[in-house]
Amino acid sequence: MSMGAVYRRRGFHYERELAKMLYRLGFAVIRAPASGSRAKRVFYPDIVAVYKRNILVLEVKARSEPCDIYIDKYKVERLRDFAERSGGEAYIAVKITSTGEWRVVPLNQLWTTKEGNYRVSKFILEKSARLEDVVERVKSSA
Amino acid sequence: MSMGAVYRRRGFHYERELAKMLYRLGFAVIRAPASGSRAKRVFYPDIVAVYKRNILVLEVKARSEPCDIYIDKYKVERLRDFAERSGGEAYIAVKITSTGEWRVVPLNQLWTTKEGNYRVSKFILEKSARLEDVVERVKSSA
Repeated sequence: MSMGAVYRRRGFHYERELAKMLYRLGFAVIRAPASGSRAKRVFYPDIVAVYKRNILVLEVKARSEPCDIYIDKYKVERLRDFAERSGGEAYIAVKITSTGEWRVVPLNQLWTTKEGNYRVSKFILEKSARLEDVVERVKSSA
Repeated sequence: MSMGAVYRRRGFHYERELAKMLYRLGFAVIRAPASGSRAKRVFYPDIVAVYKRNILVLEVKARSEPCDIYIDKYKVERLRDFAERSGGEAYIAVKITSTGEWRVVPLNQLWTTKEGNYRVSKFILEKSARLEDVVERVKSSA
């Protein structure tokens, strides 16, 4: 299996974990359809979670340790568009599997690559907020 | 083909029409995955459309003329739960194909049947708001 395929499979697993967690915390949660269905034609964020009009738009990644994570330009643009239309906050949500933590990096902290794509830098990821802190802020502001 | 199957096929067609329309009006739009994928395990509303933190939670129906439309108790309860968590407004959105209009009936205007299910009554449907009016209110309040 290619590393791309490994990452995608992990992605689905952790996507479900995150969706369940947010649901238990009181959010209305929608996961994107599995690729192969409509996902091919229409872009959807991996997870949209809403708590009393506070909207989190999430692209989900998983890595064993903090490292650079590359993200297609197209995907970032669509996440940004979705966040603007909805009035939500868009993040790359990263599960660090060695520690079990979920970290979140807002789109405006992504670095761009020479090719015009985007990167969550290891440096930024190590300093990034924990998902729990974002959830707590969202829930207390609602 | 059973009437149930006919209605479901029409439902998908008009679901797509409505999703496109709301997208063009500036909403972030998510359609439920086609049944057969994850839809079997997790409930999703047919359409969730968000305009700057104003959330519409929509179950989509289509009929040639206004008539009684029956809706499972389970579905209504899940729509209500989704609307409460998200802080959104939930509606049954009905395409009247003979006139081309979209009408919307809020959940609290559904009638209950003896079996504990729900009904959009023909009477209520004929008096219901047009979707455009709800969209206009949502967009002007944002």
